[in-house]
Amino acid sequence: MNQGFAGGAYGYVSMGPYRGGQAQYIRVPYADFNALKLPPGNEHEKDFITLADIFPTGWHGVVISGFKPGESMAAYSAILQGPSKVYVVDRVPECLAKAKEIGAIPIDFSKSDAVEQIKKQHDGMVDRGVDAVGYQASSSSDKKKEEPNAVLKALIAVVKPTGGIGVPGLYVPADPGAADEQSREGNLVLPFGKFFEKGLSMGTGQCNVKAYNRYLRDLIVAGRAKPGFIVSHEIGLDEAVEVYKKFDNREEGYTKVIIHPNK
Amino acid sequence: MNQGFAGGAYGYVSMGPYRGGQAQYIRVPYADFNALKLPPGNEHEKDFITLADIFPTGWHGVVISGFKPGESMAAYSAILQGPSKVYVVDRVPECLAKAKEIGAIPIDFSKSDAVEQIKKQHDGMVDRGVDAVGYQASSSSDKKKEEPNAVLKALIAVVKPTGGIGVPGLYVPADPGAADEQSREGNLVLPFGKFFEKGLSMGTGQCNVKAYNRYLRDLIVAGRAKPGFIVSHEIGLDEAVEVYKKFDNREEGYTKVIIHPNK
Amino acid sequence: MNQGFAGGAYGYVSMGPYRGGQAQYIRVPYADFNALKLPPGNEHEKDFITLADIFPTGWHGVVISGFKPGESMAAYSAILQGPSKVYVVDRVPECLAKAKEIGAIPIDFSKSDAVEQIKKQHDGMVDRGVDAVGYQASSSSDKKKEEPNAVLKALIAVVKPTGGIGVPGLYVPADPGAADEQSREGNLVLPFGKFFEKGLSMGTGQCNVKAYNRYLRDLIVAGRAKPGFIVSHEIGLDEAVEVYKKFDNREEGYTKVIIHPNK
Amino acid sequence: MNQGFAGGAYGYVSMGPYRGGQAQYIRVPYADFNALKLPPGNEHEKDFITLADIFPTGWHGVVISGFKPGESMAAYSAILQGPSKVYVVDRVPECLAKAKEIGAIPIDFSKSDAVEQIKKQHDGMVDRGVDAVGYQASSSSDKKKEEPNAVLKALIAVVKPTGGIGVPGLYVPADPGAADEQSREGNLVLPFGKFFEKGLSMGTGQCNVKAYNRYLRDLIVAGRAKPGFIVSHEIGLDEAVEVYKKFDNREEGYTKVIIHPNK
Repeated sequence: MNQGFAGGAYGYVSMGPYRGGQAQYIRVPYADFNALKLPPGNEHEKDFITLADIFPTGWHGVVISGFKPGESMAAYSAILQGPSKVYVVDRVPECLAKAKEIGAIPIDFSKSDAVEQIKKQHDGMVDRGVDAVGYQASSSSDKKKEEPNAVLKALIAVVKPTGGIGVPGLYVPADPGAADEQSREGNLVLPFGKFFEKGLSMGTGQCNVKAYNRYLRDLIVAGRAKPGFIVSHEIGLDEAVEVYKKFDNREEGYTKVIIHPNK
Repeated sequence: MNQGFAGGAYGYVSMGPYRGGQAQYIRVPYADFNALKLPPGNEHEKDFITLADIFPTGWHGVVISGFKPGESMAAYSAILQGPSKVYVVDRVPECLAKAKEIGAIPIDFSKSDAVEQIKKQHDGMVDRGVDAVGYQASSSSDKKKEEPNAVLKALIAVVKPTGGIGVPGLYVPADPGAADEQSREGNLVLPFGKFFEKGLSMGTGQCNVKAYNRYLRDLIVAGRAKPGFIVSHEIGLDEAVEVYKKFDNREEGYTKVIIHPNK
Repeated sequence: MNQGFAGGAYGYVSMGPYRGGQAQYIRVPYADFNALKLPPGNEHEKDFITLADIFPTGWHGVVISGFKPGESMAAYSAILQGPSKVYVVDRVPECLAKAKEIGAIPIDFSKSDAVEQIKKQHDGMVDRGVDAVGYQASSSSDKKKEEPNAVLKALIAVVKPTGGIGVPGLYVPADPGAADEQSREGNLVLPFGKFFEKGLSMGTGQCNVKAYNRYLRDLIVAGRAKPGFIVSHEIGLDEAVEVYKKFDNREEGYTKVIIHPNK
Repeated sequence: MNQGFAGGAYGYVSMGPYRGGQAQYIRVPYADFNALKLPPGNEHEKDFITLADIFPTGWHGVVISGFKPGESMAAYSAILQGPSKVYVVDRVPECLAKAKEIGAIPIDFSKSDAVEQIKKQHDGMVDRGVDAVGYQASSSSDKKKEEPNAVLKALIAVVKPTGGIGVPGLYVPADPGAADEQSREGNLVLPFGKFFEKGLSMGTGQCNVKAYNRYLRDLIVAGRAKPGFIVSHEIGLDEAVEVYKKFDNREEGYTKVIIHPNK
């Protein structure tokens, strides 16, 4: 859908010619191939909506970290792939509460250094890490102060030698609005010497949704996955503008919002 | 521990020179390397005892089937590695009850053909299968009548094209007490044409316990795995002879027995 | 091209509705997807023709054996994937000569047991094996006497514990003309106890040609692969009937024949 | 040999307590495990010496790049693992000549930008890349001017979307003598946005020599690998000081030197 390019998306800036991913109606080119068949009824509707992006993307992050069942992790979404322990790092109270609810160990990085918290609780480093944040990262409680390399730096510090890091989160080759010149050109300063010394590996990139979505659909139908738990609000299209602002600021517990275009 | 051979075990016939695996005391050669460190206390004792063989062996079966999280399976022990559905085939009521208890779908092959039951319930074939039975298999309710190829035949029938089969269960290169000559020489008649036509793959062999046991220990300690649920009875060494008979016949709900040598 | 089935081919019995794979003209459904782009000119014509089946199929056999560069093998076609030693087992003098020509070690199984010959030359067992023969195998110099399990039995004997076997060669779920009932039903008697004891793994199935052919084309163009060396004769369509007979009997050095339909 | 650390080496700074890797005699702790058995005689001596480090390290670089036989590469040592084309980037005439000698395509980066040269010759990007240089990289003909991120930047530019990069070359967590502060702290500025946009993966770390050396030994013995071709000079221990200087400056064709301590 986005020829000559390594990724593509509907309605996302510079990810292809199909606009309107969050409009009332959507064009689906080659729908016989691209669309995923769902069972009738709307029992799992809140869960199925996550198959379009966030559920496969989180899953992909775990896969490209090289994760094997039984290992420990420093990220969400691994729960379903069979880890011993999962540490979820966030600062939004509602997100941390949800992490705990699904069996992960919440780490509030606004309280103190996340790496130190994990190392102390885990009695050492973890096997794998997923960066599900991307270039809009921040390491402090001041959301305004972006530090694009904050998450990667933390993962390089907290993952065990010969472990792996999965990066499904978004990094961009150019960020015109960034504070410093390196970030504007899509560059990051990374502790590469440490990364090499530990013999770490890293997988990156936009999720190939079709590689996973039929399996994840089956997990939902079988009752083993309920990714819809992350949805905090369901709204009509008219409320979108206002709610986007709240979501952007993670205000009033807005963790994830479903828009019903025809509601 | 069993030089020049692909496997080894303590106290198991023709698996090495160290006898007495179920005796009051056991010699552990190279214990600094071979033994696994457990946390103090006996909180998880029933679970930890399974780390010596059955828990890693079941896990290994899933690994060598080529299983990836999200897929469906026709065997136990996959539950922890993140499948959508797991079908457990057995005929012992207590085993089937335990399978259901942990979230698997019990299939009683003494009632009707297991392959047909699974295909009907699953609306088709499954992604992977594990043969955790081995050469003492039987396809009917008559336990006495061994059909060594029964499980493999069923798995070749029930696993999807390009799927995989893991065989951690025991097959032997010679079975002097077998009913027919082929079985006595360790041969099996297999529907290989079907196996090939489907493009299936198969992994076999004794579990390399040390590849998994520290991860599985951590799953137990973290509260994510409780393999001890399978234990039905705990006895002293004196009762062993009598209980072995009951266990061998799967009488009175004897699914798995722990012997406390010094009790 | 062969819906609801795990494989497909043009002009091959029970592999789909498109007949005439060796006719003057061929229909290529979905040719924009199915056809492989070749460079202009006919410099590599003899090599490119092998991209339609035999070159990717041999390559696939090595891949599904689990082969890693540096290992030793008991089969052809591994040469290009970087093995230390490759043993090619055959009885046709022209084939054995060609094997030697490309750097493999020829083993003539009509002279004496192939397994013993390899073990002696290699000073032990090999890491991987490929069965590129299939159900029409024979273990003796009498070509007429088919022993469908001959190659698999030999590979189970000659491959190292924890090694792997790749089976791209053809096995069929039913062989109406076979000598015994088991073979007629697509069954094979296999030394499964030995297979298990060694902890071997096995991959099977028709080659997914499109997974490999563009890479193999590039090997040809770069001058690193010249699979056309296997071609012994090039004929017109008129000669096909007569030459098929000679090829079937491996007479007069007919190892592989190219038919030029419009010659 | 270097407890609590992800790597180790004899006689290398901060890689363990065993000094004297290039001395007349060397202590080999746990030699029954650590030493590799070689065949008698000194026929392959020049080749075998490379098994101690450089041959497995080059091989490891290819492995951790995710390379599969048939793909194209931008680095040396892949030749033996079956690539279609290998581009070797260097500026030392003797090294480029040796690259050509073994069938690689030499790229002289002192003449013009290596990425552009490869893209032009290859008509596009390559499948994989190996950084066998490390932090002492430079992108120009002025050897004195180190640019620690030069090779990684080039590989991120020249490797195809979803391709892989292997980094066996050395990066250090601290480089006290570096020109700028970031390098002194082991940090690199990397085009991470581009790396992510392409969905690239990266493997790093010191080679686990024992994972490869017996296979590589067999390649040498079988006559398939002659890594000793890289040796330009053989000297006695007395000449070491003088020759080290020449080697450091890549003077007079000193590409690789063997020291015979007892010569």
